[in-house]
Amino acid sequence: MDFTPRDPDFEAKVRSTFEEQPFMRLIGAELVSVAPGTCEISLAVRPDLSQHNGFVHAGVTNAIADNSAGLAAFTLMPPGTDVLSVEFKTNLLAPARGRRLIARGRVEKPGRTLVIVRSDVYAETDGSEVHVAMMQATMICLVSPPPRPYGRP
Amino acid sequence: MDFTPRDPDFEAKVRSTFEEQPFMRLIGAELVSVAPGTCEISLAVRPDLSQHNGFVHAGVTNAIADNSAGLAAFTLMPPGTDVLSVEFKTNLLAPARGRRLIARGRVEKPGRTLVIVRSDVYAETDGSEVHVAMMQATMICLVSPPPRPYGRP
Amino acid sequence: MDFTPRDPDFEAKVRSTFEEQPFMRLIGAELVSVAPGTCEISLAVRPDLSQHNGFVHAGVTNAIADNSAGLAAFTLMPPGTDVLSVEFKTNLLAPARGRRLIARGRVEKPGRTLVIVRSDVYAETDGSEVHVAMMQATMICLVSPPPRPYGRP
Amino acid sequence: MDFTPRDPDFEAKVRSTFEEQPFMRLIGAELVSVAPGTCEISLAVRPDLSQHNGFVHAGVTNAIADNSAGLAAFTLMPPGTDVLSVEFKTNLLAPARGRRLIARGRVEKPGRTLVIVRSDVYAETDGSEVHVAMMQATMICLVSPPPRPYGRP
Repeated sequence: MDFTPRDPDFEAKVRSTFEEQPFMRLIGAELVSVAPGTCEISLAVRPDLSQHNGFVHAGVTNAIADNSAGLAAFTLMPPGTDVLSVEFKTNLLAPARGRRLIARGRVEKPGRTLVIVRSDVYAETDGSEVHVAMMQATMICLVSPPPRPYGRP
Repeated sequence: MDFTPRDPDFEAKVRSTFEEQPFMRLIGAELVSVAPGTCEISLAVRPDLSQHNGFVHAGVTNAIADNSAGLAAFTLMPPGTDVLSVEFKTNLLAPARGRRLIARGRVEKPGRTLVIVRSDVYAETDGSEVHVAMMQATMICLVSPPPRPYGRP
Repeated sequence: MDFTPRDPDFEAKVRSTFEEQPFMRLIGAELVSVAPGTCEISLAVRPDLSQHNGFVHAGVTNAIADNSAGLAAFTLMPPGTDVLSVEFKTNLLAPARGRRLIARGRVEKPGRTLVIVRSDVYAETDGSEVHVAMMQATMICLVSPPPRPYGRP
Repeated sequence: MDFTPRDPDFEAKVRSTFEEQPFMRLIGAELVSVAPGTCEISLAVRPDLSQHNGFVHAGVTNAIADNSAGLAAFTLMPPGTDVLSVEFKTNLLAPARGRRLIARGRVEKPGRTLVIVRSDVYAETDGSEVHVAMMQATMICLVSPPPRPYGRP
């Protein structure tokens, strides 16, 4: 599998794309690491992110899984393109609780137009990790992306 | 298909479950309607819910789809139980933008343990609706649900 | 939603594509109907198509769902292209048994490159229909399709 | 993750369940290996298993992925139960061609009622392997399984 980035500035591109997402700021997500074909996002658990049992809402868990998967795909896309989620499928494995969630996205099959990805989300409590969600998804590379309204050229 | 609710208080149960979700409050989602086998949730579009292109983040769109689907399933579950998402699969069809999103969840196949559901999300702009996402999902009925920390008995 | 076929010979194209699939012959599937954005495939239930409980194997049910969905998408694709499944997600709702299965594929969202589709499979017994499977899938339009080894130009 | 089988005869149970599936015989699938939480199935590529481009039909590829995933789950289920697919989601990564396909199913999250699994399918050509499909699925443990019509007690 060829994970050579076609954009030498892939890391800066991924980091700025993450920073430009107001929803990631709203939930307090942070970009932990970026490398060719992978991306990690962490989230401090907060009460206002929970569902009716006090666990992190599946929508939040899925949002960081989707972002880690999409940005993992974006690391391999050429300059001047953008990434969009075509679809994702997520199994919820255990209640998402603890101090912090971490989503680890990785490319499974890179392609010129479509990139197939997976992401696994873990909940950290006292140093141990519980596997709380797993996603399999399809990302698309847009060659004529829409303009970005939040300041990126 | 038998959509007779086994809980006469299904509407109150669904409404209180929705109200007890802090994350739904954070994003400003509202419960529009509840009926046996269906549930509608709306969301006013806000800048802080968007991704890097200014559209509503797929994680937000998916969160209201998941909730509308789960609560549609919950309308058919007996008293003393709780609902949890086993898994969902969502295709993103068009950019989610406009004034308001509306997620329409409905039961496709009710079962004692598992309930199979779909949800379609539409974006409203000037009175017309654009189909922005579609979800197919599996919900589970928990017979010994965990206690709810936000005030429901 | 615009379901105007871009290929005036869409029906002949879909029918020949179906006929050129040896696996559809192996399981005895038949093309029932083709129209812009939809396709129906039926299958006579046979003992050699079953799993260990005597029901039709989920792999068979899924195969006709996939084909009905893919060919529904293919009705809207321009001449000189081919269709391929990117991914599918199928919920199995009830045991597939009876005299005959019928898969009804339909386009939900047509696009130039990707077409989002659904298919529902029903089992016929004594004139009544039981909903046995439902699929949500993504199809891709290939502009430079590989040559077809089974006789089609 | 606890992968201790609750049925000491898990291997015999899985092997007989595989043997009792007429559809697996029809396509010529073979059970390669069984261990706690995993199962491998192989398939010799044949012309009558192909679609219109001469590749193995996605329905066939998916059928062995589903079986390897379901039987991987079945290795961990207690005596007197049966396994059924609730749903599966499969991405098709590359044309399935060559001499032989091999599907490797494994449990990701075992549970009393639901078992979450993945399966990856590879195509073998001249000793090298190409990743052709990946599945993420949900299996259910049936405590009062239907009788098996093909000879198993």
